Amino acid sequence: MHITIADIAQLIEGELVGSGQMEITGCAGLKEAREGDLSFLANPKYEPLAKESKAGAILVPRQMALAGKTIIRVNHPSLAFSKVIDHFLKDAPPLISVGIHPTALIAKDAKIGKNVAIGPYVIIESKAVIGEGTLIYAHSYVGHGTRVGAGCLIYPHVTLREKISVGKRVIIHSGTVIGSDGYGYVTVEGRHMKIPQVGGVVIEDDVEIGANVTIDRARFDQTTIGEGTKIDNLVQIAHNVTIGKHCLIVAQVGISGSTQIGNHVILAGQAGVVGHLTIGDGAVVGAQSGVSKSIKSGGQVFGTPAQPLREAFKTNAHIQRLDHYVQWIQELRKRVEELEKKDAKND
Amino acid sequence: MHITIADIAQLIEGELVGSGQMEITGCAGLKEAREGDLSFLANPKYEPLAKESKAGAILVPRQMALAGKTIIRVNHPSLAFSKVIDHFLKDAPPLISVGIHPTALIAKDAKIGKNVAIGPYVIIESKAVIGEGTLIYAHSYVGHGTRVGAGCLIYPHVTLREKISVGKRVIIHSGTVIGSDGYGYVTVEGRHMKIPQVGGVVIEDDVEIGANVTIDRARFDQTTIGEGTKIDNLVQIAHNVTIGKHCLIVAQVGISGSTQIGNHVILAGQAGVVGHLTIGDGAVVGAQSGVSKSIKSGGQVFGTPAQPLREAFKTNAHIQRLDHYVQWIQELRKRVEELEKKDAKND
Amino acid sequence: MHITIADIAQLIEGELVGSGQMEITGCAGLKEAREGDLSFLANPKYEPLAKESKAGAILVPRQMALAGKTIIRVNHPSLAFSKVIDHFLKDAPPLISVGIHPTALIAKDAKIGKNVAIGPYVIIESKAVIGEGTLIYAHSYVGHGTRVGAGCLIYPHVTLREKISVGKRVIIHSGTVIGSDGYGYVTVEGRHMKIPQVGGVVIEDDVEIGANVTIDRARFDQTTIGEGTKIDNLVQIAHNVTIGKHCLIVAQVGISGSTQIGNHVILAGQAGVVGHLTIGDGAVVGAQSGVSKSIKSGGQVFGTPAQPLREAFKTNAHIQRLDHYVQWIQELRKRVEELEKKDAKND
Repeated sequence: MHITIADIAQLIEGELVGSGQMEITGCAGLKEAREGDLSFLANPKYEPLAKESKAGAILVPRQMALAGKTIIRVNHPSLAFSKVIDHFLKDAPPLISVGIHPTALIAKDAKIGKNVAIGPYVIIESKAVIGEGTLIYAHSYVGHGTRVGAGCLIYPHVTLREKISVGKRVIIHSGTVIGSDGYGYVTVEGRHMKIPQVGGVVIEDDVEIGANVTIDRARFDQTTIGEGTKIDNLVQIAHNVTIGKHCLIVAQVGISGSTQIGNHVILAGQAGVVGHLTIGDGAVVGAQSGVSKSIKSGGQVFGTPAQPLREAFKTNAHIQRLDHYVQWIQELRKRVEELEKKDAKND
Repeated sequence: MHITIADIAQLIEGELVGSGQMEITGCAGLKEAREGDLSFLANPKYEPLAKESKAGAILVPRQMALAGKTIIRVNHPSLAFSKVIDHFLKDAPPLISVGIHPTALIAKDAKIGKNVAIGPYVIIESKAVIGEGTLIYAHSYVGHGTRVGAGCLIYPHVTLREKISVGKRVIIHSGTVIGSDGYGYVTVEGRHMKIPQVGGVVIEDDVEIGANVTIDRARFDQTTIGEGTKIDNLVQIAHNVTIGKHCLIVAQVGISGSTQIGNHVILAGQAGVVGHLTIGDGAVVGAQSGVSKSIKSGGQVFGTPAQPLREAFKTNAHIQRLDHYVQWIQELRKRVEELEKKDAKND
Repeated sequence: MHITIADIAQLIEGELVGSGQMEITGCAGLKEAREGDLSFLANPKYEPLAKESKAGAILVPRQMALAGKTIIRVNHPSLAFSKVIDHFLKDAPPLISVGIHPTALIAKDAKIGKNVAIGPYVIIESKAVIGEGTLIYAHSYVGHGTRVGAGCLIYPHVTLREKISVGKRVIIHSGTVIGSDGYGYVTVEGRHMKIPQVGGVVIEDDVEIGANVTIDRARFDQTTIGEGTKIDNLVQIAHNVTIGKHCLIVAQVGISGSTQIGNHVILAGQAGVVGHLTIGDGAVVGAQSGVSKSIKSGGQVFGTPAQPLREAFKTNAHIQRLDHYVQWIQELRKRVEELEKKDAKND
């Protein structure tokens, strides 16, 4: 990466205010940005954040000024920013060459798109479909009839079982297993009989899935991960779960069977959600929370069992002060006893 | 799958009451069943559940009637039901052909049973034994001297380290590691010295193990998973743990070293159990609970630290009402102060 | 292993007191030791523990006596003990032979040290470096430019992505992924744009990493695991985390991005630490705790949100007694009401 602020201004047809010589080495939000990072300000209410930001340059709306900062004025800062990110991502050449490695085993009736890269010891089973420009690193496994869209990136040691559908531009990190059997049994006289799990998994476009994640196939139907949703490492998604679009599912979260999660939902790290719930659009679940009831759209919950955020904070504040309250109770007991004694005398 | 209710009645030698034409596409419990599912009623006390069930047909005891439902009367509904499940499971042909793929590397002194299927890039190390009819998918690894029984199903990317014993009809999902070293160190002057972990792991018959599970080998002796126990995804089982028969260990549970778990125990999702405990037969541990004390047979616990279920519910109800109680305390303080003031005047 | 107590006494130049004939089969701490184990006593204050220990023989300082126990007197019990552990570890011959398996794919410009063992279907990418005497089991993947030091042990199915640095004598168990992308996005108009993750991971000497662990690469810079730190199974370590030397990170712990952990820290099982915190040297975090604030050196915390240990115990004791306190409050309300009634009469 050798790109200056001036180069970026040109790339996004923006108006540079300040020196264009600094080299930009990455992109980040205003808070996380460091020297050498490009950031952006779309909403004027975040101007104070922009003033404190350490970013090397900030994309801002036309007409805006930010004293003392190097800025690039554009019509649409957020779209311009995503254009720069795309530029950075494309700039890093893939570590795998286009072509099919001679040790890759590809079934004769699999369909392989143009310009794919398929690494050593990869296995593509019968009737699988690999879209144009998709990269599949070493040792990964694509099962029978599984379809992977165009422009995907599959890292080493990924398992895609049979009859999985993966959209376009999906990234799947190493060790992840998609399409393992759902955990379903009927108990007959103390023995757990396996219920056949014959459904599939649908991963929509622009999803990213971290390392060592597990996503089970549905009993019938589909387990679904919606467009643009980003899943962190070691997450468990049970059979028949539906996750909406543009959600953030942070590391080590577990979602039980048949739960339906809306769009733009955030589940923070190590949270657990029981089965057969509905989590509304835009809901936020705090870290380590245990969700046992459905959540309305926009609801924010925390704790085990999860409560609405305000109540949870109040409850937690009370818990931290329990020692204090117990002292009050003990003191009250003495004072009431004292009053009762006096009262008895007066009778 | 093309099997009608009438076909099923014939398969299990039952008496059909109602139309036999509907096609049955799956099996499920009364609650979970949907149109097209077969279910069963073994215990007459669940008759109300059977009446509400959406199952396409229900196996019931001889002489029972269920108005408005398609039923099949049999001598033993639960056994007949498991016979149908077996039928369904066998009906799905395996996606791997009997035979040994030419890229599978099998040690000369390994013993391979009849009618096995061993997929591409599978490795079977020296002195390993693979039982009759076992299927091992691509990329899996069977270590030195490890014995896998008959009729097992090992999915892609499974690691069975050395000296592991796997029973009959065991299913192991992708990414699972069995026989990694136990987490054992002695701290000598601030440095953690590794204690050799030279024991094994025993997986008994009819166990199913989910994806990306880790089961450590014992220091000496064996880590043991009892017959018929079903383990969900991303579960951690430490060295020297013993799990009894027919347990359900739900996703992301962690069990610390040397803990002994009885038969028919249920550990719900994300629960943790500390080391060197004894969990009695039939115990139930709620989701996300932290178990720090042994549990008697039949005990049901919840919370962190885990309490008996009734106490946990009571405690939790109190916690939810803390704000209310604190208001009471504050009000009491005022009222007592008022009484004290009056009392002081009266003196 | 056939080594007697007398052999061990000779190996470490110690003075045997008691019979030297018993065969020693393992090493363990005083508490965990069983018959046949060797243990050690470095600090005289643990003498009571030594007296109760079931160890077959105990290394003790010169001049010490332990009535009824077989002991070996040495100048430095802890160092002598680690010498014996080394002896035991070396005694177990590796299950992989020195040499490069013909199916291993090694880039022409990779540098491979002397006396390495590289198993079947291993992939070593371009510019990778493998140190002398390192063993890499079947199916593992070493990415572009990744450097693995001397004397390491990499089990089957490990993924080391590109530009990772692994020190000397590091052990990495199966299914572990090092160098997956950090979980970093900027949300632009409701869509999560991926921020390039172009940093690396540094694993220092003598680290051991369990099975199915995930350690993400930094955005820039390095995610770092310090010398001698031991990580259990299914642990998640996010991008830009720094872990100090000689820490113990127990199974299923999750550490969020950019958190800095000192030396000799213990994080017990299933604990979670939020991002951008500082955890001081020697801190201890209890199992399942949720750490949301930085911890000073030597701090011990427990619970969610984590409190200092004493407060957490007090809080927890109060919580267990809530039912009792609520009864007190209800009783107080009655008594105060009674007093108020009498008071009203007296007015």
